[in-house]
Amino acid sequence: MKSVAIIAEYNPYHNGHQYHAEMARAKSHADIVIAIMSGQFTQRGEPAIFSKFARAESALNGCDLVVELPQFYAMSYADDFAYGGVKTAQILRADALAFGAECDDLDLLKAEANRVREADIKSGRSYAVMMGDETFSQPNNILAMQYIKAADPMLDLIPIKRIQNHYHDTELTGRIASATAIRKAISAGHDFSESVPASIDTALAVSWEDFFPLLKYKILSHTPEELRNIYMMTEGLENRLKSSIDNSHDFSSYMQTIKTKRYTYTRLQRLLAYTLLNIKEGQPITDIRVLAMNDKGRAYIKGIPHLHTNINKKNASLFAMEIRATQIYNLISGDKRNDFNTPVIYQRTSF
Amino acid sequence: MKSVAIIAEYNPYHNGHQYHAEMARAKSHADIVIAIMSGQFTQRGEPAIFSKFARAESALNGCDLVVELPQFYAMSYADDFAYGGVKTAQILRADALAFGAECDDLDLLKAEANRVREADIKSGRSYAVMMGDETFSQPNNILAMQYIKAADPMLDLIPIKRIQNHYHDTELTGRIASATAIRKAISAGHDFSESVPASIDTALAVSWEDFFPLLKYKILSHTPEELRNIYMMTEGLENRLKSSIDNSHDFSSYMQTIKTKRYTYTRLQRLLAYTLLNIKEGQPITDIRVLAMNDKGRAYIKGIPHLHTNINKKNASLFAMEIRATQIYNLISGDKRNDFNTPVIYQRTSF
Repeated sequence: MKSVAIIAEYNPYHNGHQYHAEMARAKSHADIVIAIMSGQFTQRGEPAIFSKFARAESALNGCDLVVELPQFYAMSYADDFAYGGVKTAQILRADALAFGAECDDLDLLKAEANRVREADIKSGRSYAVMMGDETFSQPNNILAMQYIKAADPMLDLIPIKRIQNHYHDTELTGRIASATAIRKAISAGHDFSESVPASIDTALAVSWEDFFPLLKYKILSHTPEELRNIYMMTEGLENRLKSSIDNSHDFSSYMQTIKTKRYTYTRLQRLLAYTLLNIKEGQPITDIRVLAMNDKGRAYIKGIPHLHTNINKKNASLFAMEIRATQIYNLISGDKRNDFNTPVIYQRTSF
Repeated sequence: MKSVAIIAEYNPYHNGHQYHAEMARAKSHADIVIAIMSGQFTQRGEPAIFSKFARAESALNGCDLVVELPQFYAMSYADDFAYGGVKTAQILRADALAFGAECDDLDLLKAEANRVREADIKSGRSYAVMMGDETFSQPNNILAMQYIKAADPMLDLIPIKRIQNHYHDTELTGRIASATAIRKAISAGHDFSESVPASIDTALAVSWEDFFPLLKYKILSHTPEELRNIYMMTEGLENRLKSSIDNSHDFSSYMQTIKTKRYTYTRLQRLLAYTLLNIKEGQPITDIRVLAMNDKGRAYIKGIPHLHTNINKKNASLFAMEIRATQIYNLISGDKRNDFNTPVIYQRTSF
C-alpha cells in the first residue's frame, strides 16, 4: 500500500485540512493518508484548543491514520519541528510527504532550500536565526524548505498550494477558513460549524489564559537557579520571567511585560510552554503513538515496528513527555481522556 | 520594659488566645506581650485559614507586638518548631516565654523533659521519633517540653494551663472554643463571632482542598528524581506521591491514598506542604519580620537589631521563603496583601 504523510497541527481540524488530505491522496496516488499531528501543545508554544484525542478523531474525516508528532518536536522551532515530522514519517514508512505551501513549485522550493543551505554554511548561522524564526512572511514556505532539507531522498515531496485564505487570516471566510479564524470564532462563541467537517464539543476548548495560574505558580515557586534548567532558558531570561510574574494577572499582559526586541513573541511563548511542562531537554524519536485510525489505517500499520496503539506500564517511559503534557493539559481542560485510558480511536471505514 | 513572648499559630486568633495573652502578661509581670506567630503555613503542614496579615491584626487584641516565626520552623516537627520559636524570642530579647500546656507545674514539666532527654541520649533516638511525633496524647505538653529543652536558662518559663476545651475539640463551646472548632464552623458557614475578639472576613478563608490543583500540577510536572530534592522526601516517598496523583481529585482522598502505617498523617501533610512550596532545605534564623504592633510594641522594638517592619529589595533575600509562601498562598486566597505592599500593621494603643 502506498502512503502519503502530512505533518500538521489540526488546531482544530477543518475543511481546509480535509481538502489538503484529499489533494495529498490524489497527487501522490496513495492508498493511505497519514496525519502526523501535534499533541497537546503546538509549535507556537500554545496549548491546542482541543485535546489531541478530539483533534485526531476529527482528522479521520480525510485521513486514515493519525499519529502523534512527539511533543518535544511539536513545540520546537521550524528546523526541529520539520526534523521530528520527517523522522516520524520514516518510522511510518511513508512513501510521500505532502505539505501546504504558498508556492507549489517543488523545483523552485528545492532551489531556494539549497540557496539557503549554502548561505547557511557560509555564514555559520542557523536558518531559523537568519530568517528571524517566525518573521519570514510566508510561514508554510519556511516549513516546506525545512522538510526538503530534512527529507530522505527516497521520500516523494508534494507541495500543495494553499487555497482561499492565508495562515494568519483571522476572519471566518466560509467553508474554508484558517485555524486562527476558527479559534477566534470559538472563543467569541460564534458559529463555525460550516468550516469544519465534524462537530466539536467547544466546552473543552482551552487557551493559554486558562493555564496562567499554573504557570504563575511554577515561576513563583522556583528560584532563578532552578528555572535556568528549563530548555532554552538562556541569557538571564529566568530573571526576566520572575521579576514581573507576581504582579501579572493574566497571560496576555504578562507576555506584554516580558517581551523585548531581542526575542520574538513566539520564542518567549514557547519558553513559557517549556516552563509549564517542565521540559529540560530534548527527546530522541524511537517510538510513535498512534492516536486514531480507520480500517485502512489499521491494515497499514500491521507489521511496522515501534508503533503503539495504546499506553500501558510497559511502554509508558517511551512517552513520558506526551503523558505529562496530557496530564497537565487535562488539569485545565477537564478532559477525561488521558494517554492511559484512551487506546487508539478506531473507526470502521464507510464507503 | 519587661517582655513575655508567646509562640503561637493563631489559626485563627480567638478568645482563648486573648485570655492566654492576658494570663501571660499577668503571670510574668511584663509590660509587653510579644506573639511569635506562624505565617501562611502551619506546623501541621496546612495553609493557615487566614493570611498572616489578617491573623496578626486580630492578635493585637491582647498582644502588643506580632512577629513572624520563620516559615521553615513554623512548619517543622516539634523540635525544630520549638527551636525556631525560642531563637526568635532571643532575637526579640524576650524576658519570659509563656506557653499553654495541659499541665502548668513547671517543675514537673522540667523533670519530665529531663527524663526524656536522658532516655533520648541513651536510646540514641530523637524525641520526636520516640514519641511518635503527633501521637502523644497531650500535644501542648510535648511542645512545652521542647521549649524547656531549647530555652536559654536566662529565659523565664511560664506554663499556662489551658482552659475549658482541649486542643482537638471540634465543637464550638461558647466564648472559649478551640481553633479547630472555629475553623470547622467557618467552613460550615456557622456563626463563630462569639468565640473571637474581632470580626474576620471569612471570604478569604482557605484550606488544603483549595491548593490541591497546584499541588497536583507540581507533582505531575516533576520527575521522581526532581521530587527527591524536596525536604524530607525520603525512602522513595516521591514514587508514592506520584503514583496516585493523576487519579486523585481532591486533597482528602489523595491523603487517604498515600497514607501508610509507616507515616503519620501530619508527616505526609507537611511533606506535601514542602512540595507545594518547593522547600528543599532549612533556613538559618538571623532576621525577624514584624507583622503588627501597637504603640507599646513600637517603643519596645526601637534599637533591637535584625527586626524588619517592612520588606523591600534590600532585605527581601532574608525572607525569601516567607515571600514565596505568601505569593503561593495569595494565588489561591486572592488576598491582595503581600510582603512587599504590606508594611507593619500599626494600631494606636487604646486605653
